[in-house]
Amino acid sequence: MSVTKGEATRIAILDEALQLTSRTGVTTLSIGGLARETGMSKSGLFAHFKSKEGLQLQVVDRARERFVDTVVRPALAAPRGERRVRALFDGWVQWERAAFDGGCIFVTLAAELDSRPGPVRDALVASERDWLELIASTAATAVSEGDFRADLDTDQFAFEVHGVMLANHHANRLMGDPTGAARGRTAFESIVDSARRHH
Amino acid sequence: MSVTKGEATRIAILDEALQLTSRTGVTTLSIGGLARETGMSKSGLFAHFKSKEGLQLQVVDRARERFVDTVVRPALAAPRGERRVRALFDGWVQWERAAFDGGCIFVTLAAELDSRPGPVRDALVASERDWLELIASTAATAVSEGDFRADLDTDQFAFEVHGVMLANHHANRLMGDPTGAARGRTAFESIVDSARRHH
Repeated sequence: MSVTKGEATRIAILDEALQLTSRTGVTTLSIGGLARETGMSKSGLFAHFKSKEGLQLQVVDRARERFVDTVVRPALAAPRGERRVRALFDGWVQWERAAFDGGCIFVTLAAELDSRPGPVRDALVASERDWLELIASTAATAVSEGDFRADLDTDQFAFEVHGVMLANHHANRLMGDPTGAARGRTAFESIVDSARRHH
Repeated sequence: MSVTKGEATRIAILDEALQLTSRTGVTTLSIGGLARETGMSKSGLFAHFKSKEGLQLQVVDRARERFVDTVVRPALAAPRGERRVRALFDGWVQWERAAFDGGCIFVTLAAELDSRPGPVRDALVASERDWLELIASTAATAVSEGDFRADLDTDQFAFEVHGVMLANHHANRLMGDPTGAARGRTAFESIVDSARRHH
């Protein structure tokens, strides 16, 4: 698919907006603020995004698109089963480390938007639901391949792996704890181990 | 200890500021905003808090004080060992449910402040470190009482239990998932179970 110049510009602006959002959140993200940050004209930005809410929604969409490209698509290229579960976790670790100045943008948005009803929160919730369901359905491929036990609660598995990601993010980003990544890996291995074990 | 009227007023104002912070974060919390929210005079609030940063620091202190009263002190009254570990987790579940409109204020603050260096972030980090160390040292009482295995990595235990709390908060507050509390409980039991097991 060829991308028009206008479209390429829109994506480049959104990627700058994502960096800003990862540091300071989406609620205060406005067309005026983004104009100051990027040095672009406010009227040019209005032409792209129409409104503050339009901009905020496109930021969430763009985050999701980047996440799919960086984490989901490579993991789906891994063989079904435990290897794909591992690819998903490894992809997330890379994403958390590399994607944005302020860490995983979804962690930032989740805490920011949980008490702010509206379309931006709805878009985030839909995206988070897809993510949790993807972890669960990937665990289900590991069940059907015989890697994980047949009675595994795959939604519980997704909940626990997601908790490890949140704790990892907290250790890295807030606490500056150099052991955070290793602790996250150990916690993940322990969840995978008990998914394998026949009780 | 008797509390003066001025002190009681200051605490009542801080408790309102905590509700506001749990919904909208601490960065945007200002003396002017709090005056509008509480109907108090701006000059009265200035007399109590001196500056925006003074107010924000006192909010973090007050959150910590409330957390100690609600979660830590009752847990420390439980017998050493696994029972005390459980009391800590149960206390946190109550706290998350009941304390503030917007959920656990420390979860909100962690995501908000992780890329905002300064004294408010430093105060939060100190408080979070105390909390993680308290979970670890409580797990250590369970080791010395013989409830948990001798080679348990108590910092890893604290990391994992904290991850469960974060996932629980995410499920309850962002996703509106009615199974969040039960999933949190199941995840906690599985961590406790593997702390008991001799490998």
